[in-house]
Amino acid sequence: MRDYNSELSKKTGMPPGTLIHVGDKRVEEPKLTLVEYNGDNLEVHVSQDIDIIKDLEFAEDRKIWINVDGLHQTELIESLGKLFGVHPIVLEDILNTNQRPKTESYEDYIYVTIRTLFYERLENTVNSDQISIILGNNFILSFQEMETDLFKKIRQRMERPAGIIRKRGVDYLTYSLIDSIVDNYYLLLEDIGEEIERLEDELINEPSPATLQNIHELKREMIILRRSLWPLRETIASLQRDESGLIKESTDIYLRDLYDHSIQVIETVETYREMLSGMLDLYLSTVSNRMNEVMKVLTIIATIFIPLTFIAGIYGMNFEYMPELKWEWGYPAVMIFMATMAVIMLYYFKKKTWL
Amino acid sequence: MRDYNSELSKKTGMPPGTLIHVGDKRVEEPKLTLVEYNGDNLEVHVSQDIDIIKDLEFAEDRKIWINVDGLHQTELIESLGKLFGVHPIVLEDILNTNQRPKTESYEDYIYVTIRTLFYERLENTVNSDQISIILGNNFILSFQEMETDLFKKIRQRMERPAGIIRKRGVDYLTYSLIDSIVDNYYLLLEDIGEEIERLEDELINEPSPATLQNIHELKREMIILRRSLWPLRETIASLQRDESGLIKESTDIYLRDLYDHSIQVIETVETYREMLSGMLDLYLSTVSNRMNEVMKVLTIIATIFIPLTFIAGIYGMNFEYMPELKWEWGYPAVMIFMATMAVIMLYYFKKKTWL
Amino acid sequence: MRDYNSELSKKTGMPPGTLIHVGDKRVEEPKLTLVEYNGDNLEVHVSQDIDIIKDLEFAEDRKIWINVDGLHQTELIESLGKLFGVHPIVLEDILNTNQRPKTESYEDYIYVTIRTLFYERLENTVNSDQISIILGNNFILSFQEMETDLFKKIRQRMERPAGIIRKRGVDYLTYSLIDSIVDNYYLLLEDIGEEIERLEDELINEPSPATLQNIHELKREMIILRRSLWPLRETIASLQRDESGLIKESTDIYLRDLYDHSIQVIETVETYREMLSGMLDLYLSTVSNRMNEVMKVLTIIATIFIPLTFIAGIYGMNFEYMPELKWEWGYPAVMIFMATMAVIMLYYFKKKTWL
Amino acid sequence: MRDYNSELSKKTGMPPGTLIHVGDKRVEEPKLTLVEYNGDNLEVHVSQDIDIIKDLEFAEDRKIWINVDGLHQTELIESLGKLFGVHPIVLEDILNTNQRPKTESYEDYIYVTIRTLFYERLENTVNSDQISIILGNNFILSFQEMETDLFKKIRQRMERPAGIIRKRGVDYLTYSLIDSIVDNYYLLLEDIGEEIERLEDELINEPSPATLQNIHELKREMIILRRSLWPLRETIASLQRDESGLIKESTDIYLRDLYDHSIQVIETVETYREMLSGMLDLYLSTVSNRMNEVMKVLTIIATIFIPLTFIAGIYGMNFEYMPELKWEWGYPAVMIFMATMAVIMLYYFKKKTWL
Amino acid sequence: MRDYNSELSKKTGMPPGTLIHVGDKRVEEPKLTLVEYNGDNLEVHVSQDIDIIKDLEFAEDRKIWINVDGLHQTELIESLGKLFGVHPIVLEDILNTNQRPKTESYEDYIYVTIRTLFYERLENTVNSDQISIILGNNFILSFQEMETDLFKKIRQRMERPAGIIRKRGVDYLTYSLIDSIVDNYYLLLEDIGEEIERLEDELINEPSPATLQNIHELKREMIILRRSLWPLRETIASLQRDESGLIKESTDIYLRDLYDHSIQVIETVETYREMLSGMLDLYLSTVSNRMNEVMKVLTIIATIFIPLTFIAGIYGMNFEYMPELKWEWGYPAVMIFMATMAVIMLYYFKKKTWL
Ligand SMILES: [Mg+2]
Ligand SMILES: [Mg+2]
Ligand SMILES: [Mg+2]
Ligand SMILES: [Mg+2]
Ligand SMILES: [Mg+2]
Ligand SMILES: [Mg+2]
Ligand SMILES: [Mg+2]
Ligand SMILES: [Mg+2]
Ligand SMILES: [Mg+2]
Ligand SMILES: [Mg+2]
Ligand SMILES: [Mg+2]
Ligand SMILES: [Mg+2]
Ligand SMILES: [Mg+2]
Ligand SMILES: [Mg+2]
Ligand SMILES: [Mg+2]
Ligand SMILES: [Mg+2]
Ligand SMILES: [Mg+2]
Ligand SMILES: [Mg+2]
Ligand SMILES: [Mg+2]
Ligand SMILES: [Mg+2]
Ligand SMILES: [Mg+2]
Ligand SMILES: [Mg+2]
Ligand SMILES: [Mg+2]
Ligand SMILES: [Mg+2]
Ligand SMILES: [Mg+2]
Ligand SMILES: [Mg+2]
Ligand SMILES: [Mg+2]
Ligand SMILES: [Mg+2]
Ligand SMILES: [Mg+2]
Ligand SMILES: [Mg+2]
Ligand SMILES: [Mg+2]
Repeated sequence: MRDYNSELSKKTGMPPGTLIHVGDKRVEEPKLTLVEYNGDNLEVHVSQDIDIIKDLEFAEDRKIWINVDGLHQTELIESLGKLFGVHPIVLEDILNTNQRPKTESYEDYIYVTIRTLFYERLENTVNSDQISIILGNNFILSFQEMETDLFKKIRQRMERPAGIIRKRGVDYLTYSLIDSIVDNYYLLLEDIGEEIERLEDELINEPSPATLQNIHELKREMIILRRSLWPLRETIASLQRDESGLIKESTDIYLRDLYDHSIQVIETVETYREMLSGMLDLYLSTVSNRMNEVMKVLTIIATIFIPLTFIAGIYGMNFEYMPELKWEWGYPAVMIFMATMAVIMLYYFKKKTWL
Repeated sequence: MRDYNSELSKKTGMPPGTLIHVGDKRVEEPKLTLVEYNGDNLEVHVSQDIDIIKDLEFAEDRKIWINVDGLHQTELIESLGKLFGVHPIVLEDILNTNQRPKTESYEDYIYVTIRTLFYERLENTVNSDQISIILGNNFILSFQEMETDLFKKIRQRMERPAGIIRKRGVDYLTYSLIDSIVDNYYLLLEDIGEEIERLEDELINEPSPATLQNIHELKREMIILRRSLWPLRETIASLQRDESGLIKESTDIYLRDLYDHSIQVIETVETYREMLSGMLDLYLSTVSNRMNEVMKVLTIIATIFIPLTFIAGIYGMNFEYMPELKWEWGYPAVMIFMATMAVIMLYYFKKKTWL
Repeated sequence: MRDYNSELSKKTGMPPGTLIHVGDKRVEEPKLTLVEYNGDNLEVHVSQDIDIIKDLEFAEDRKIWINVDGLHQTELIESLGKLFGVHPIVLEDILNTNQRPKTESYEDYIYVTIRTLFYERLENTVNSDQISIILGNNFILSFQEMETDLFKKIRQRMERPAGIIRKRGVDYLTYSLIDSIVDNYYLLLEDIGEEIERLEDELINEPSPATLQNIHELKREMIILRRSLWPLRETIASLQRDESGLIKESTDIYLRDLYDHSIQVIETVETYREMLSGMLDLYLSTVSNRMNEVMKVLTIIATIFIPLTFIAGIYGMNFEYMPELKWEWGYPAVMIFMATMAVIMLYYFKKKTWL
Repeated sequence: MRDYNSELSKKTGMPPGTLIHVGDKRVEEPKLTLVEYNGDNLEVHVSQDIDIIKDLEFAEDRKIWINVDGLHQTELIESLGKLFGVHPIVLEDILNTNQRPKTESYEDYIYVTIRTLFYERLENTVNSDQISIILGNNFILSFQEMETDLFKKIRQRMERPAGIIRKRGVDYLTYSLIDSIVDNYYLLLEDIGEEIERLEDELINEPSPATLQNIHELKREMIILRRSLWPLRETIASLQRDESGLIKESTDIYLRDLYDHSIQVIETVETYREMLSGMLDLYLSTVSNRMNEVMKVLTIIATIFIPLTFIAGIYGMNFEYMPELKWEWGYPAVMIFMATMAVIMLYYFKKKTWL
Repeated sequence: MRDYNSELSKKTGMPPGTLIHVGDKRVEEPKLTLVEYNGDNLEVHVSQDIDIIKDLEFAEDRKIWINVDGLHQTELIESLGKLFGVHPIVLEDILNTNQRPKTESYEDYIYVTIRTLFYERLENTVNSDQISIILGNNFILSFQEMETDLFKKIRQRMERPAGIIRKRGVDYLTYSLIDSIVDNYYLLLEDIGEEIERLEDELINEPSPATLQNIHELKREMIILRRSLWPLRETIASLQRDESGLIKESTDIYLRDLYDHSIQVIETVETYREMLSGMLDLYLSTVSNRMNEVMKVLTIIATIFIPLTFIAGIYGMNFEYMPELKWEWGYPAVMIFMATMAVIMLYYFKKKTWL
């Protein structure tokens, strides 16, 4: 959670559309990957330079996907934006990597931004990255701070000539990119689910302050996770409702499936959050229970021995005229009296079910 | 709750429509049950092979119900899908047995999926299975991982020639299948309700840490149960609103009844959840109460005897010049003094209503 | 709350429209009350037999109200249903006395079901009965398990020739029946309100575990009460929106008044629930407070006397070479020292505001 | 909160429109105040008799405001109602002084009812009265149980000939009456806000069970207050939406301002409620904290002196053969040993940060 | 939070449109800043007098921004209002500095009011000021109690001739003013976020009652903060929906960005509030945990030494006939017996995992 909001203040007081990277520099040099494809051909060019794009010829029968890994060279983003006619305020959102997931329709393109999530089990934290996608008539631009495996796998699927992804339009590719990110949420939720089960076992079998701390941390992460996931649903619904013509009807069925997944993901997070709340309540009850146990032991011991010690103290007094001290059976009589008292006490505790 | 989400990661990174069974293999061999029926006739064929379906002749005056028990032979599902023109993304949902209950309308058929629920009282857990139904023009396909009694009973009702179910269309059969599943929820909720009453009695009469554990477990199951039941309402409402013509107007009245039941089921789960929350609060208060009791006993005993023991300790000192020790009435005087102190203490506790 | 859902399982697996009484047999024999009335005349016939109804002549200028007390003779309900053209699925709801309050419009009639509520103060429980009303063109059928005073009073009002109820249509009579049930809720809520005030006084003046138990029980009943009352609002709103023509415009003003009452009733229950939650929290804080008091007494006594007892113990040791024991002023010196220590301790507790 | 609902049962079982005063008799005799006014003239007549109204001449260029203080003479209300054509069900609401705030449009008039609120600081309770207003074409009727200063001030403003209130229609007067009531809520909320601040200071500086009790009482009043204030928003919104023509367009701008105030009032109550909840939680944590302090003192004292007392007890035993007792340095050795033990203990507590 | 509502009562009972400053006098003399600008020119005049405005010539090709710092000279506001045709009820809102953020459309202008927020870290409080903006056809009026840096920076941006702000209309300037205020919220939230992290560290590493107090205070401020921020969203959405023509289409894209920010700000506050609630729960659990630790130490010590002290007390009794006292090995035997008992106790505690 650390630093989630921590750099937005960089931008304060600047006019809108000022391009400043609000986020982390995660790669040395930005990397551009240009994929030109249609049903028959697929060409991939990788470069650190925008020149490979400048010579690009747009053709009706070819689709173009440009992926940028690394956002800290703002001039690169700016040039790309100009080339494809992207509004500066959109470029600004691409560079401010704290966006809430959203879909925005512009005249010639749709801007979608969602977040990839990573769970660090050791630290019980969830980190996230922003993925921005611009879907145009025959092109896609995608932006992220660092290369991920997710998009690599999509590229591999595109290399297979028979793949549906090659034949269909860039709207289907957009769907595929978002789908791969949402699929990845399931992995994240599975990991967290396993951690919750582990903590629940620990809570029942050997609860410790560390268990409490872990449950609390995980619950806090759920609160933060919700912020990235709740808007996802609306983001995908907006794509479904889009009327610009950039998304073909044949893709709707896939977006509906994606929408289902987004609801499942949200509901799982809500379920986890409620389960963790329940575990925190259970912890508190368990501590009270154990404290009650401790108190009973103390009370039983003290209640039996304090009065007996008092009686022993009586006969330890040094008065000259204490007739009992002279009696031959005084000592055994006192001992029997004390034993009787102890038995009565034990019976009383038994009746109170303290034993 | 274990493994609720645990296999969805199998699918990560695959293109949509890839058919992989996400769930459990619960039968050795899938079983196909083909029921051909109309008002006059009823024929039932059971097979492990798809061949019996391949020779199927479609006739205007005959309705067909194909039920599949066992989902692990994906080729079987795929062949069936192709035969009836079902979209791969629907087949995928049939095989991913973690779907949220939903109704989806396609051009030629309606896809409905809901969950059957089983309560294991000994382990305080609720397990669930996915039932998928495809309602076409004159046919129904139904899919589940394992044969259940629920559908067997429907088949028995169909064997009676006078039964309304034979005379009406496949939309009424769809309603009957869902109705039998929802009816079964009442049994589940009755069992849970009885367990809640048992726990409430236990809570009042002899609460133990095990009671706490049981209430907590049941509350956690309610959280999970809600996830299967909340969407049920929308699933049935979607069927009611359907405009494809596949559901006849005469069936609407039955769907409205089903809708009522879905709300009743949801409200019962919410009621149970709130009652269990109240029981957890009561448990905590009860533990505090008992701790207070224990503390009072300890305090009364200690407060009476510690000062008396101190006085006995005074006269146990070995100073040479302690005039009281020489007095003839010293011992009885001290004893009376101590008794008086004890009585005052007891009066004080009485006034504080600790006794 | 006991048995709220406990008999719905009777119906599992049966086709819709199967008539089985799900509820209690509260009268030996069902009783039919037939009221024929218009502005000029009123005739009342009471019977255990349906025959009096079979000879009924329907006339434009006469209105008919048939009330059935006792639902266990399902054939009687069935015959009545056939006579008045009521759909079997409605008859089923009349017999399943666990319905959620609702209004359902059919072609020729409107079906309304709400619940009467009874509060048993001694057991802190709220019981309920189902009242079903079928409002037709010129007739009303009403069904309940047992005769109530509520409907008797309506009949008495009808006997007065000047009463508005005689002059207006059956829609106004329907309103009057529902109004008398909702009015009765106020009595129930007043009783519960008084019990809450009594418990609040008890909580402040002499809280005991029984107080806790009572608050908890009442809160649980509020949870169950809500289930019967929340749908009431929608039930009445549906009547207001009705467009079948069975409810005349002149009745709308009365239904609006009824709607107001339904909201007031719901808000009172919600208020009670929140007040009871607050009382549970207060109880917990009060127990903590008292535990704190007990602990302070124990700590003050122990902290003063344990060190003093230790000092007495020192001079009770039997060492041969303990010079203090020989001093003439040893004993008074030790006594003064101990008194000083006690005073310092008391001052310390005073400063900590423990005294 | 006492008696909030306590008299509604008076009305049970009566036909709608039966006029019974459900509330308190707060004045001996009802007082009618008739104000006839226009831009040029203002005449005020006060009487206990309805006759002054019976001779009333309605004129196009004169506006009439009749205010009734005291509702227990139901015949008076009835006569007034007949004179101005008010429906009995509205008169009933005027007399049932437990109405939820609401606006109801009738053919010839609008009925508005809201509540005035009074905060009794000493008892931490909020009392309320019902104000009913009937806004007709050229007249206003207002009803309340007792004269308030609020309306007197409005009358004073009307006496100034230059006042806008004289020139504008009765709709503006209606706005002014409601505005004066809502303005008064701010005073109430300020008083409660000051009490909350006082309690918060008390909670931090010297919390006592009385503090807890006060916070609890205030929170309970907030729950009840919400019930009177939440509907206010809708009441004013209904006036804004009114399409009867009784409210002129020029008044809309004032109603919008009033609507803003109603939201501010609701939000303040919600804020107070959350703050009081937070204070209750803080109280509980504070008690736990102090209990922890008390326990530490007890534990430190007991843990140091109980073992030392045991050692003193050893050497207080009367065995004949205890060589240590004969040693010359036995006594000082034991004393040094005991001092060392005490120091170690103190060091241990220091390390545990208990000291 | 102090004094948030504390002066609204000044206004009670006054007619609407009465101009009274409800707020603080923060500058000695009000300051008027007049900015006349278009793409080519920019003139700034500062004065304490309204005269500079009276001579103002309105020209098609020039835009005017008048900013007022200091609201206590109500005549100044009144004159300005008259000059620009602003309704008195709007002027009243400008002077009542407790407005809820809102947008109100009038015939010739739009009135927007939002709040600037300042976080005082030392006192854990959030203070706020009201900013009012009136957007007319070719002019903007802005009002606040004190000059802020925010608007100064806007003025500096306007001085650059190339700046977009000079070229665009007053609607864009309105956006820029609101944007600078909302940007400033990020700074506030960052500061609060850092304080939350600091408190979370403190809570884990060295919790103290002061930590509790701080968390509580911060949570209370979040409750108050929400009241200023929730309406912000609707305020900006109203601007987006505006149909008066005063806001040009080209500005819509910027308002959408602003709307995004308003949601982000609200979500952050909600997240903080939930995190602080979680921290309060954690604190309570932590205190319980530590109390449990303290209790265990006490119980171990007492349970070991109280019985041993009793045994020592037995042999400290002065009975004449106590044979053990005469035995040669009596003393070592008792010592060994006592050591054995202590070891058994320790083993018991070990088994209970108390050690
Ligand atoms: Mg954050
Ligand atoms: Mg963001
Ligand atoms: Mg959902
Ligand atoms: Mg899931
Ligand atoms: Mg959801
Ligand atoms: Mg829980
Ligand atoms: Mg799960
Ligand atoms: Mg799903
Ligand atoms: Mg129902
Ligand atoms: Mg139910
Ligand atoms: Mg519901
Ligand atoms: Mg409870
Ligand atoms: Mg129930
Ligand atoms: Mg229900
Ligand atoms: Mg309401
Ligand atoms: Mg009420
Ligand atoms: Mg409500
Ligand atoms: Mg409370
Ligand atoms: Mg009440
Ligand atoms: Mg009310
Ligand atoms: Mg609002
Ligand atoms: Mg306010
Ligand atoms: Mg609100
Ligand atoms: Mg609370
Ligand atoms: Mg709090
Ligand atoms: Mg405030
Ligand atoms: Mg406000
Ligand atoms: Mg957004
Ligand atoms: Mg944010
Ligand atoms: Mg939100
Ligand atoms: Mg928490």
